[in-house]
Amino acid sequence: MSRLLIQNCVVLQIAEDRPTVTLLPNHDIIINGSRIEAIQPSGAANPSQFDEAIQANGMVAMPGLINTHAHVPMVLLRGLAEDVSIDRWFNEYIWPLENNLQEEDVYWGMTLGLAESIRAGITSVADHYFFMDQSARAVERAGTRALLGWAIFSSSGEAMIERTADFAREWNGAANGRIRTILAPHAPYTCTDDYLRAVAHKAKELGLGIHIHAAETMDQTRASIAKTGRTPIQVLEQTGVLDVPTILAHACGALPEDIALLSGYETGIAHAPKTYLKLAMDITPIQSLRDHGIPVGLATDGAVSNNTLNLWEALRLMAMLQKDRAGSAEVMPIEEALYIATRESARVIGMGQELGALEPGYLADLILLDLSGLHHQPVHSITASLVYNTEIHDVHTVIVDGQVLMRDRELLTIDAGEAVEQARLSMQRMATRQPDRRIQTYNP
Amino acid sequence: MSRLLIQNCVVLQIAEDRPTVTLLPNHDIIINGSRIEAIQPSGAANPSQFDEAIQANGMVAMPGLINTHAHVPMVLLRGLAEDVSIDRWFNEYIWPLENNLQEEDVYWGMTLGLAESIRAGITSVADHYFFMDQSARAVERAGTRALLGWAIFSSSGEAMIERTADFAREWNGAANGRIRTILAPHAPYTCTDDYLRAVAHKAKELGLGIHIHAAETMDQTRASIAKTGRTPIQVLEQTGVLDVPTILAHACGALPEDIALLSGYETGIAHAPKTYLKLAMDITPIQSLRDHGIPVGLATDGAVSNNTLNLWEALRLMAMLQKDRAGSAEVMPIEEALYIATRESARVIGMGQELGALEPGYLADLILLDLSGLHHQPVHSITASLVYNTEIHDVHTVIVDGQVLMRDRELLTIDAGEAVEQARLSMQRMATRQPDRRIQTYNP
Repeated sequence: MSRLLIQNCVVLQIAEDRPTVTLLPNHDIIINGSRIEAIQPSGAANPSQFDEAIQANGMVAMPGLINTHAHVPMVLLRGLAEDVSIDRWFNEYIWPLENNLQEEDVYWGMTLGLAESIRAGITSVADHYFFMDQSARAVERAGTRALLGWAIFSSSGEAMIERTADFAREWNGAANGRIRTILAPHAPYTCTDDYLRAVAHKAKELGLGIHIHAAETMDQTRASIAKTGRTPIQVLEQTGVLDVPTILAHACGALPEDIALLSGYETGIAHAPKTYLKLAMDITPIQSLRDHGIPVGLATDGAVSNNTLNLWEALRLMAMLQKDRAGSAEVMPIEEALYIATRESARVIGMGQELGALEPGYLADLILLDLSGLHHQPVHSITASLVYNTEIHDVHTVIVDGQVLMRDRELLTIDAGEAVEQARLSMQRMATRQPDRRIQTYNP
Repeated sequence: MSRLLIQNCVVLQIAEDRPTVTLLPNHDIIINGSRIEAIQPSGAANPSQFDEAIQANGMVAMPGLINTHAHVPMVLLRGLAEDVSIDRWFNEYIWPLENNLQEEDVYWGMTLGLAESIRAGITSVADHYFFMDQSARAVERAGTRALLGWAIFSSSGEAMIERTADFAREWNGAANGRIRTILAPHAPYTCTDDYLRAVAHKAKELGLGIHIHAAETMDQTRASIAKTGRTPIQVLEQTGVLDVPTILAHACGALPEDIALLSGYETGIAHAPKTYLKLAMDITPIQSLRDHGIPVGLATDGAVSNNTLNLWEALRLMAMLQKDRAGSAEVMPIEEALYIATRESARVIGMGQELGALEPGYLADLILLDLSGLHHQPVHSITASLVYNTEIHDVHTVIVDGQVLMRDRELLTIDAGEAVEQARLSMQRMATRQPDRRIQTYNP
């Protein structure tokens, strides 16, 4: 196994069980194969005894960011649905636009979006989209880590449950374990109870989890109660979805009783605050969820609502909106925000025991940040800079599974120029909309 | 006079009286001295007939951003006051920290902050701080545009009104008109009525405006009513402050009657949304102010609340928070946000007739943006990218008053390394706090 030495960084460590940050200056990180072997004061390790050495020169080393809910290939459509209500966003834009999607679009969209993600310091993504075998190919080649779920609706038919289960079976554990799979019914408002029940049954059979949109807005919750007498989250419980580990996207419309209910299950919430502001969805009740022991992770959602794949922006929006909603500047302090961005996001994707921390034995997914930019200077507080100042351009080096994917801001595994060119070639075709030809109808 | 040619850009033009954006691809901009002479299709101008030519290669040209309220030298203190209530922020952090300020700190802090501002595409700032002759020296050297006001409190004494008026008289119109001055009483809660009256009298005498914090929070408005029977904005009216052109910072606590009152005066509102979220101040009632004909401009405030001087972040936060508060994704569409960032921000600093637009006769303050970054690709909508995707690193070239201040991301007028080093040298001294030695007390 290949051994990698990262010399002289400031290592950000976060306690496992509480949001306490420790910064270790002048430390080396030793990586053996895909895992961290040791973190020790600089000086003891001899670079000549390693296959590769990276001189960090005082840069900050922290866990790679984890995007707990995205539709990465939607970067192909970014900028095409602005300033419209969520109903129009789905019915007149997204679902007609997605009617244009071909298999190879997903491959190139995923590749382009993974390139953007690596530049932004994102090393893992829980992606929920179509033609996921194409996405899996792109992840395998890019070198990142992913939890992939093939999106289905009731209208996709029962056979698609089998097809997506086949995909999940085939790819789970692929690429040295970098790829894991999950089942991905779209939402309670696009899947009947029977369909959800069948997916839950399949997930149990395969020993996999479920990634689903749930209670995205309070309007959806109200509509669900009016139509079925149950909240969307109660529907998930009654159909057996919550009996497997789940990722619930958004939950801005979760009621207190939903939160109490969820606390009894193995579930995590993906929080994508930029999307919520842009679509006026209100925000996830993070404090209450976390008070009930339900982990919350950061997310970008797709780039047609979030516009970019930038978790730094999600990180500070999350913290600031919690202060705003609570009317207290003391809520969601910096260390808690960093805890959510690292350890807790890893828990949401079911990898809390081996991801989201720089510790011996953990997977070697980490980034080096260059805080020499003028927007950080002078650096009185590294942790404040991480939450409130960091830009994607500050990400200098990205390592996943012990492999260097970006060094000195240069992508090593993806030909970004080729991905951009492919995206350009399909732009006109992708932007065409025929509202009556949509893949689905939003009517929660 | 020197003539500058910018070849082959996409010129962003915004109508004067309504938020309508036009993009002119393959256009040249001709600058003569400090003003724009012409904007015309590429091909007609001969580069050899100009003193300098810049090949824009399809980059976007737009007006330089205008920061309508800042305390730029506070970059020296960034990261030192996090996660604390506004009362503690003032009394235990900012005002004790500012007790450390020496004249030369302001020079270096201003220089460092202007370097950060240029990198971010900010060409003008309305700055409100201390030792402003030092800031004026820094602006003169940096080549940017500024409206400078020397901050005073009642506790500064009557003599300081004279001293700051002397500063204003001396520097108004300096540096080829790039520097303008304004009087800058801190706020109604730190200045007595008599003091505000004396400042207003002095402003009228000098023919200058006033830049002041007002109704920063609803708590301040309530406290003012309880103590004096008047809102902070009513105090400004009664003391004659509103009889001169004013910039009011924040106004998150403006009541409907305040807004009706302000509509009769020549005033503009500076809006710094990141500060409001971080300090849980609620937000400025922008829609209502603008419905009453009161212009609103973008602002960063100081870097101890905003953490960076990044108006792109302020731009998207402004738009997103308006959607959030209105519960409608259709509120504050992209073109309106761009109108506020350009023409309307120019109006707030009293320069709407010659700044904030790319038109013949306007001052040549403009930036070139490189949208080739992966976070923009593919570019279906340039305007969406400007509001929701742009990062400071996308700013490629910055021109103020016809002079190139940054080219290909290289600062040409400021030695940033020297400014960073000076800031580092004072870090320990600047970070020392003795809460009983503060320059002022917050007790609105």
